[in-house]
Amino acid sequence: MSFEEKLAKLRELYTEQNLLTGIGALLGWDQQVYMPSGGAETRGAQMAYIGGLAHQKATAPEVGQLIDDLAAEIPDLDADDDLAREIKLAKRNFDHSAKIPTDKMMEFIRVTSLAHEAWTKAKTDSDFAVFQPHLEKILNLTKEMVSFFAPYDHPYDPLIDMYEVGMTAAEVKSIFDALRPRQVELLRRIAEKPQVDDSFAHTEYDIETQKKLNNYLATLQGYDWNRGRLDETVHPFTTGFGLDDVRITTHYYLNMPLSAMFSTLHETGHALYEQGLSRAYHNTALGGTNSMAVHESNSRLWENVIGRSKEFWRFLYPIAQAFFPANLGNVSSDQFYRGINKVTPSFIRIEADEATYNLHIMLRLELELAMIEDKIQVKDLPELWMSKMKEYLGVTPPDDARGVLQDVHWSGGMIGYFPTYALGNLLAVQWWNQMLSDLPNIPDEMAAGKLDSILTWLRENVHRHSSRYTAQELVRKVTGEGINPDHYMNYLTKKYTEIYDL
Amino acid sequence: MSFEEKLAKLRELYTEQNLLTGIGALLGWDQQVYMPSGGAETRGAQMAYIGGLAHQKATAPEVGQLIDDLAAEIPDLDADDDLAREIKLAKRNFDHSAKIPTDKMMEFIRVTSLAHEAWTKAKTDSDFAVFQPHLEKILNLTKEMVSFFAPYDHPYDPLIDMYEVGMTAAEVKSIFDALRPRQVELLRRIAEKPQVDDSFAHTEYDIETQKKLNNYLATLQGYDWNRGRLDETVHPFTTGFGLDDVRITTHYYLNMPLSAMFSTLHETGHALYEQGLSRAYHNTALGGTNSMAVHESNSRLWENVIGRSKEFWRFLYPIAQAFFPANLGNVSSDQFYRGINKVTPSFIRIEADEATYNLHIMLRLELELAMIEDKIQVKDLPELWMSKMKEYLGVTPPDDARGVLQDVHWSGGMIGYFPTYALGNLLAVQWWNQMLSDLPNIPDEMAAGKLDSILTWLRENVHRHSSRYTAQELVRKVTGEGINPDHYMNYLTKKYTEIYDL
Repeated sequence: MSFEEKLAKLRELYTEQNLLTGIGALLGWDQQVYMPSGGAETRGAQMAYIGGLAHQKATAPEVGQLIDDLAAEIPDLDADDDLAREIKLAKRNFDHSAKIPTDKMMEFIRVTSLAHEAWTKAKTDSDFAVFQPHLEKILNLTKEMVSFFAPYDHPYDPLIDMYEVGMTAAEVKSIFDALRPRQVELLRRIAEKPQVDDSFAHTEYDIETQKKLNNYLATLQGYDWNRGRLDETVHPFTTGFGLDDVRITTHYYLNMPLSAMFSTLHETGHALYEQGLSRAYHNTALGGTNSMAVHESNSRLWENVIGRSKEFWRFLYPIAQAFFPANLGNVSSDQFYRGINKVTPSFIRIEADEATYNLHIMLRLELELAMIEDKIQVKDLPELWMSKMKEYLGVTPPDDARGVLQDVHWSGGMIGYFPTYALGNLLAVQWWNQMLSDLPNIPDEMAAGKLDSILTWLRENVHRHSSRYTAQELVRKVTGEGINPDHYMNYLTKKYTEIYDL
Repeated sequence: MSFEEKLAKLRELYTEQNLLTGIGALLGWDQQVYMPSGGAETRGAQMAYIGGLAHQKATAPEVGQLIDDLAAEIPDLDADDDLAREIKLAKRNFDHSAKIPTDKMMEFIRVTSLAHEAWTKAKTDSDFAVFQPHLEKILNLTKEMVSFFAPYDHPYDPLIDMYEVGMTAAEVKSIFDALRPRQVELLRRIAEKPQVDDSFAHTEYDIETQKKLNNYLATLQGYDWNRGRLDETVHPFTTGFGLDDVRITTHYYLNMPLSAMFSTLHETGHALYEQGLSRAYHNTALGGTNSMAVHESNSRLWENVIGRSKEFWRFLYPIAQAFFPANLGNVSSDQFYRGINKVTPSFIRIEADEATYNLHIMLRLELELAMIEDKIQVKDLPELWMSKMKEYLGVTPPDDARGVLQDVHWSGGMIGYFPTYALGNLLAVQWWNQMLSDLPNIPDEMAAGKLDSILTWLRENVHRHSSRYTAQELVRKVTGEGINPDHYMNYLTKKYTEIYDL
């Protein structure tokens, strides 16, 4: 076979992987959005079958041989051209996947699929005991997974690496260590000031009208409805079955309109990234995404940096008032802006304000590290959660539904994922600063309801690169420096200094 | 390998086939229910991939060898014990599937998947030209499929056999020939009488309330909501992803409340059958269903024999009046009963009354036979449809949306399917007569809103047999005779003699 034929063969394999990943994603989407409870067991088997098949095909010895053959013909695998990067990443992906036995991968999918059902029930009833045996199985399987990647500096490294290629526990800890005291200090200063009034956010907002406003938000952001849809789930998420079908979900609460709104802004941010990935790289190793921090930087940028900004609401607030005249008619835009930026220690991560959010992540990281280091047991999690919440945020959740059971991630076996949210927060501000420096008109455009320059900048600087760069490489390329918490802390400090008159 | 080991291997294969069939069904369900238009192309590729994989695995030479080995150890393959039937049916399935090349099967799925999108658009815009090239491809592929099954008595035989194992064009034609003059004569007699008043069915029925009533209907029928759900589609259907996830769809029209109601009764009838299949036979060749006539007999029984009966509405009508007081408050139960049984030549098959329904089927059969016999071309279908409607029913549809484009089937490549609806009508009455003879209390129970004896009888006599019998075998076993149009004609004549005072 010629080099071109081998390359075509590799890309055929990636095409097949994309078909299988898309099918698996649909099975998962349906499971979370529409599947009746009776379907859970068969669904687990279906997902394991597809995941197993994908894994088996991706890790076949002849694939490794094919990639090695291709790599041998590339003059410099570390070169920064598309072809070298494609082969190098294909090699990384193969080496990574081949470390995990297919039957273990299938078991992992089966176990997490059933755990999702158990978690849903446990959360609804606030009954950790229902979820505990599932999480124990997941933790054991996760440790087994980790063992396949030995040697490593820290057993958490292979887990982060699944969501954030190239990132390590040490790197995350170092970033978090730089961040923690400054976040705590900022919180302390805010706590000394009079609280803002967000009472408007706790009246009853008609659900059908909320739905209309949320559809409008996603549209305003630039979401392509011909290539996606918005549904409702317990835990909002984004998923894709190909470049042209990227779906989001949100959840509506009568007394918490901000919950749906910021979830929708967040998930639409994810979806815009997926809808904006390179078509040229699609069905190659450079397609898709390989940094959840970059993914989360898109969602957190839209949710917070844009979605909680004064300029965004300058345009949008009159519209929101028109949707909800009884709720917002007598609330000034200034009061609204302060209200949606209220800083207060709270139980639920996804409802948390920007000043406390990262503390929720640090709590989870600490518990995950302790689990992986065998320092704590699953059965101790509810109590530990409560005490850590007290320690980090000064509040104690009233029940496990608003404590250890609040997030879907562990039920999906996603230990190692949470840090990417905090990294995403940092990156979001780094993109934002660069964007404003490149296009200083953006705040004015936002105030006029025009968000297309933002999307175009993201498409050009972030989305279209797909998997070509790691997060650190990309942020260096776009901004000239690596992930740096200073920008985030400066952003927070400036914002809250104004709102809380610090 | 021992016989038991070989049998276990065969059943593993069926388990895998069921997983793949369920995954394919979810891809299809989502395509029809929720998929955004942009997803169509990738979805076609995903469905073709899964269908191709299933076909390739089912037709691997070693599977044929395995089945032959098993068959050789069965003393009498025609014996009526489970094991003999299982191996015999496995052999039939293998021989049948192996005749079709996998790449042709994949092409068929890809083409029909895209055709579904085109049909949806064509129907919405009443523009046959959009659908025509797709149907031409489908017809050519269908003829190619037929050629793989040569020799046959008639080229339509292999097509019917896909939906109705063992049935032939000659057998269908003979049944239809016996039926046609008697249906036409009955219609003639009804047409001479004063028409019943169904004006109540054309006022505006609030859609949300319709949804509630339809959910209630399915519940009353005995639909297990833990193992299914009800969604909305252009064309109502039932699909299953395993024994424990069998979903139905319906469609709501403001001015046509009967449309959703009878669609729901119909699809729930299908779903009750699928939910009632034998667990013991599941994941063997005897699992699943192999007669769409039996399938349709369940749906048509619930929709018509039960759903348009006086006894059913004796219980239900006051409830319907309570749901829709403004629409039905002043309509007597007798007027309602006559109204829902109004006989009138109409454009749409699925809205047709029992007296005209089979004529819609005969029209389709005639066109399908002509297409397969190369007597007509796809481009001529709209005009032929119009003239046949005039000939069979005396009416001419105002547009193609209400003519040749009304049914989803051809877009899915389901040429050969339609006759099973008419056969289902005949079987439904044969089950009904036997049920009443076994359980004469049923009409009284229905009038009291108790339908569980009906479901129990169907479970016991029909559902639990899964694929063990062909339609003809099953009806002989249950009623002592084969498919016989007399029962249907007697039922219709008796019913309409009373309603129209014939």
